[in-house]
Amino acid sequence: MKSVREMVALQASKLGGARLAAALKVQSVVLREAAAFLHGRGFIQLLPVMVSPITDPLNHGVADAGIDYCGSRLQLTKSMILHKQLALASPAASKIFIISPNVRLEIPERASTGRHLLEFTQIDFEMRRASAGDAMRLTEELFRHLFSSAKAACAAELAELGREVKVPCKPFAVRTTGGLKAEFGDSWEADFSASLSEPAWVLDHEREFYDREDPAAPGHYLNYDAVYPGGFGEALSGGEREFEHARIVGRMRRNKMDLRPYSAYLEAARIGMLSPSAGAGFGVERMARFLCGFERIEDVSPFAKSPGSDGFLF
Amino acid sequence: MKSVREMVALQASKLGGARLAAALKVQSVVLREAAAFLHGRGFIQLLPVMVSPITDPLNHGVADAGIDYCGSRLQLTKSMILHKQLALASPAASKIFIISPNVRLEIPERASTGRHLLEFTQIDFEMRRASAGDAMRLTEELFRHLFSSAKAACAAELAELGREVKVPCKPFAVRTTGGLKAEFGDSWEADFSASLSEPAWVLDHEREFYDREDPAAPGHYLNYDAVYPGGFGEALSGGEREFEHARIVGRMRRNKMDLRPYSAYLEAARIGMLSPSAGAGFGVERMARFLCGFERIEDVSPFAKSPGSDGFLF
Repeated sequence: MKSVREMVALQASKLGGARLAAALKVQSVVLREAAAFLHGRGFIQLLPVMVSPITDPLNHGVADAGIDYCGSRLQLTKSMILHKQLALASPAASKIFIISPNVRLEIPERASTGRHLLEFTQIDFEMRRASAGDAMRLTEELFRHLFSSAKAACAAELAELGREVKVPCKPFAVRTTGGLKAEFGDSWEADFSASLSEPAWVLDHEREFYDREDPAAPGHYLNYDAVYPGGFGEALSGGEREFEHARIVGRMRRNKMDLRPYSAYLEAARIGMLSPSAGAGFGVERMARFLCGFERIEDVSPFAKSPGSDGFLF
Repeated sequence: MKSVREMVALQASKLGGARLAAALKVQSVVLREAAAFLHGRGFIQLLPVMVSPITDPLNHGVADAGIDYCGSRLQLTKSMILHKQLALASPAASKIFIISPNVRLEIPERASTGRHLLEFTQIDFEMRRASAGDAMRLTEELFRHLFSSAKAACAAELAELGREVKVPCKPFAVRTTGGLKAEFGDSWEADFSASLSEPAWVLDHEREFYDREDPAAPGHYLNYDAVYPGGFGEALSGGEREFEHARIVGRMRRNKMDLRPYSAYLEAARIGMLSPSAGAGFGVERMARFLCGFERIEDVSPFAKSPGSDGFLF
């Protein structure tokens, strides 16, 4: 293991370097333009929630992270999905977004993906009474705007990195998880992403309880992920949402969840506080990594925390 | 204690109400315009840090909140001051800002202030090689812009609340902690704020190690807080920073701090990674509360967490 002195010298070299500087500039343009785009379309920007009795249960191997305060156990936010659903109950909040930090204590093995960090930030949006199609069309417009803004505002940095960013055509191509599994096998994401020259949609993922199951085709789901081309993998994840008490309870039971921690959320569903909605979130560091063409997401983050590391400085 | 059913009904009533809706709209305008203003002046927007081996030690009664991961202890961010100093080492980052959530496990007694929450968000900025005066002038311009933007964009909401927002003149009036203590006593803040009709500066606070002590007048500090008028209290807190290793160590020792958790930060200072800088942060919920004229900060936050509460739902 390296000494603190050696690790700080490495950190100084990274922080002082042109590579991180380019990524920070690209990332700042993404943040600026995403907020401007969404405000321009009438979205209200909410503040992040960082600690709460409930958070996204997630469906993959992430350890719980929580703190105790005055007899309450508060979880660190893994995503704001449940709070987004609740916030839509405000008459001001028919369209919302949040620059939302998430803490996910990923298993150490995820360090090898090049795109997982213990903490990252997503731009997370939700629209009351919107459909999957509404969210997908908005995403396509937003990504086109962000890619072209980064190209224009960071032309010198991207040229220095040797990275050519292509503004995608719309609509993005559409695939389904079923079709991709048949073509690429169960671990389709990497090969599918590598086969693409533009972002594409993948529909119908079986996962957390809150993504709406198609009432017309049970066993299929009204959700959608965008995948970057070039092997960069998942770009954005979203869905229409379950909002009716009985359906939520059924989905939670099917996922073998303990319902007790969600008693207030379920009560909110029971009294009709939740609305039909659709939304999505995309990781800001992942977009900066894609736009810069970096192999590793650590290279866009000044204080990157990699899964499994025990040598955090800052 | 209320039942979950009663508490959710109260939450539904708050979320559905016009009062919170007005506050959310005002707050969203503050977020939109603060980002636009700072980007427009060449600031780079960085992403928040939520967990780190180090965070602001703070000088008031806040319990530590942390999590364990792979043998490391990570603190929840109380403020990004130390990370702001380090980030300025990037050539891209001579002027930075972050929409930065902070978690501060305040003592239960702070519930009575009307302006403390366990989690809140500050807009936190820092400028390499800037002076206190630079940061104060920028703040005055920014506050004038935010107040006038909220007035214009939320005229109907503010009228409905019966709130008249006055755009402050610049420069703000300037006082010192010494003068205010002589006039109002040791707990000067509330009475001083109540005496004001426009925001004012208060200079020279003895507090955390990182606020620069005046080399020309030891025992005095090159920091500055903005105070809202009308009894709304502290608006913004900032300072020039200590950046030299020997001075930081001396200040930490004087504050009786354990230096060991800061070994990497001190090594960064030793090798010259830190620059002279000045910056500040202001709480977004506090500004929304002030602009709306609300007695309690809980009224601007959909999922407010009050100090001492043991009845968190969301």
